[in-house]
Amino acid sequence: MLGFDADLYQRVIGGAGALRSQIDAIVDEVAATGYDSIFLIGSGGSYAAMWPYEHLMTRLSTVPVRSAIAAELVLTGDPRLTERSIAIFSSLSGTTKETVAALEYCRERGVTTIALTGYADSPIAVADHVLVNWADDETASESVDIQLLLLTTALLHRRGEFDDYERLANELADLTSVLTRVQEQADPIAEAFAKKHVETDYHFLVGTGMLWGFTYNYSMCILEEMQWLRTTRVHGAEFFHGSLELIDRDTSLLLFVGEDETRPLMDRVLRFAETYNDDTTVVDTADYPLDGISPEFREFVGPIVVDAITIRFSKHLEAARRHDLTTRRYYRKVEY
Amino acid sequence: MLGFDADLYQRVIGGAGALRSQIDAIVDEVAATGYDSIFLIGSGGSYAAMWPYEHLMTRLSTVPVRSAIAAELVLTGDPRLTERSIAIFSSLSGTTKETVAALEYCRERGVTTIALTGYADSPIAVADHVLVNWADDETASESVDIQLLLLTTALLHRRGEFDDYERLANELADLTSVLTRVQEQADPIAEAFAKKHVETDYHFLVGTGMLWGFTYNYSMCILEEMQWLRTTRVHGAEFFHGSLELIDRDTSLLLFVGEDETRPLMDRVLRFAETYNDDTTVVDTADYPLDGISPEFREFVGPIVVDAITIRFSKHLEAARRHDLTTRRYYRKVEY
Repeated sequence: MLGFDADLYQRVIGGAGALRSQIDAIVDEVAATGYDSIFLIGSGGSYAAMWPYEHLMTRLSTVPVRSAIAAELVLTGDPRLTERSIAIFSSLSGTTKETVAALEYCRERGVTTIALTGYADSPIAVADHVLVNWADDETASESVDIQLLLLTTALLHRRGEFDDYERLANELADLTSVLTRVQEQADPIAEAFAKKHVETDYHFLVGTGMLWGFTYNYSMCILEEMQWLRTTRVHGAEFFHGSLELIDRDTSLLLFVGEDETRPLMDRVLRFAETYNDDTTVVDTADYPLDGISPEFREFVGPIVVDAITIRFSKHLEAARRHDLTTRRYYRKVEY
Repeated sequence: MLGFDADLYQRVIGGAGALRSQIDAIVDEVAATGYDSIFLIGSGGSYAAMWPYEHLMTRLSTVPVRSAIAAELVLTGDPRLTERSIAIFSSLSGTTKETVAALEYCRERGVTTIALTGYADSPIAVADHVLVNWADDETASESVDIQLLLLTTALLHRRGEFDDYERLANELADLTSVLTRVQEQADPIAEAFAKKHVETDYHFLVGTGMLWGFTYNYSMCILEEMQWLRTTRVHGAEFFHGSLELIDRDTSLLLFVGEDETRPLMDRVLRFAETYNDDTTVVDTADYPLDGISPEFREFVGPIVVDAITIRFSKHLEAARRHDLTTRRYYRKVEY
């Protein structure tokens, strides 16, 4: 497959699953100390990466959970953020300055901090607990999704709010072959999409539930940042309260459909799209077999699966549009 | 001023402020009963209208607060939503079916419900407590902002988390003349913007803090829904983690700048825009005098002030683009 490195993929995906014993040990320790709130803190793609797990915990747990933009949190504060809080941070490079500042802000307040990073010696590795898994820009989302799913379900398991953690963690141990097959299945679909949309300058993205954070991320950090394409992104329930008026027959609609309890919201968007649009691309995790994943866990691995599918879309857009995914006008090129 | 009805405005703005004694009575009652969480529930513009007050309470209070999309909440649930919760709903018509369903969902669970609506006999007026203030589509946001600011600061006041409620409520009693002057000051700016952008088909909106909900709302429910203009909307801190790569010298950038603690985030966006863009429109509440509003309350009335300013933008866009704000392709025209 275009731009696919099997050894690299094994290292990243297997590496993320192999962090399970470290995650269990961290959860043992924070559960023993006790806590009364959980904060999920990041910037940009690493902020949106938190949303599925905020959604998951909000759905299943009584513990107050908040995802927060690092740069806003340090200005606004939060009276619930105390020495009885857990704060989870993510930054692949570990150098995102707003995230590093938010980590420092939390440490000064005695918050228990957990950091996910690609590098053991990075600035955010000063957290109380550090999970290190190297990844490249394309595989970072899958790496983080696997770790956050393990970490949040382990926390809920300890609280008596998620019984099946052991079995889920076993199934997440090494998803490399499952996700490689997902990419192989998605590849021709992605290639056709990219070839059809070489000249398309605007895409309209919709998702819900466990996939809403991904939808935001793919819009902002891939299509806008890495392809300089105009997009709009809207939650599938919000779609019907404004944005739908923009849709005409030729609008490129990208619908991300998962298998969680919010699927009926996307079914409604799909019915609308079938009636009023002729350029709808549906990325539906239900179309992918996922050998070794129990049916009742498919909803939870949705973000990991769409990460894998859309790596193919990104790679083919890069090739078809002759626009390198790493080209930037501003980021790390100018001061701002 | 174009499309300005002084009598209507007095009725809406004065009417919202006059609800203060009813709001005080509701807060007396819910405080006497006790509660352990607050939910802010809506759909589309009425969902985004909740965000400033989620921001305000998250900043100032230890009570868990969550804004929720009505249609998602009833599918996902939330273990913290119980008979010890308060849920606040808003729908001008009171007929938004997802919001009505979420109200019913909460009532079945014994949640204490408070509804804001324009009509005393509307479906959401079955809530335990109902605040009625008629408004038209253009003034609905101001009406709701005034009521939600009174309601949430009254709740915090009773919790000992907002000392200055009495003085703030007195200042909000009738903002008609203050906001009329805001509209008069904004009118020529808005007219110039609309005339300059008759042919502009894409706008890039940025805001933070108390104005982030407004930014989302103006993008989705005005420019997209009522003018069929393509937009992107991004939080001012997130701007630097992806979306900025889309900016070139000719991009129409609309920056909403308030006076709350997140202002430094917008200062950074402004500096970027000054360097790399030639078509930036800054809507800054600090440019408006607001006679009768104490300096320390200006940050809290930010959403009300930008509502007033941007009514002028909407009216002039409607006229200059010859696109009626009430024209729809789908909403209440077809089934979906």
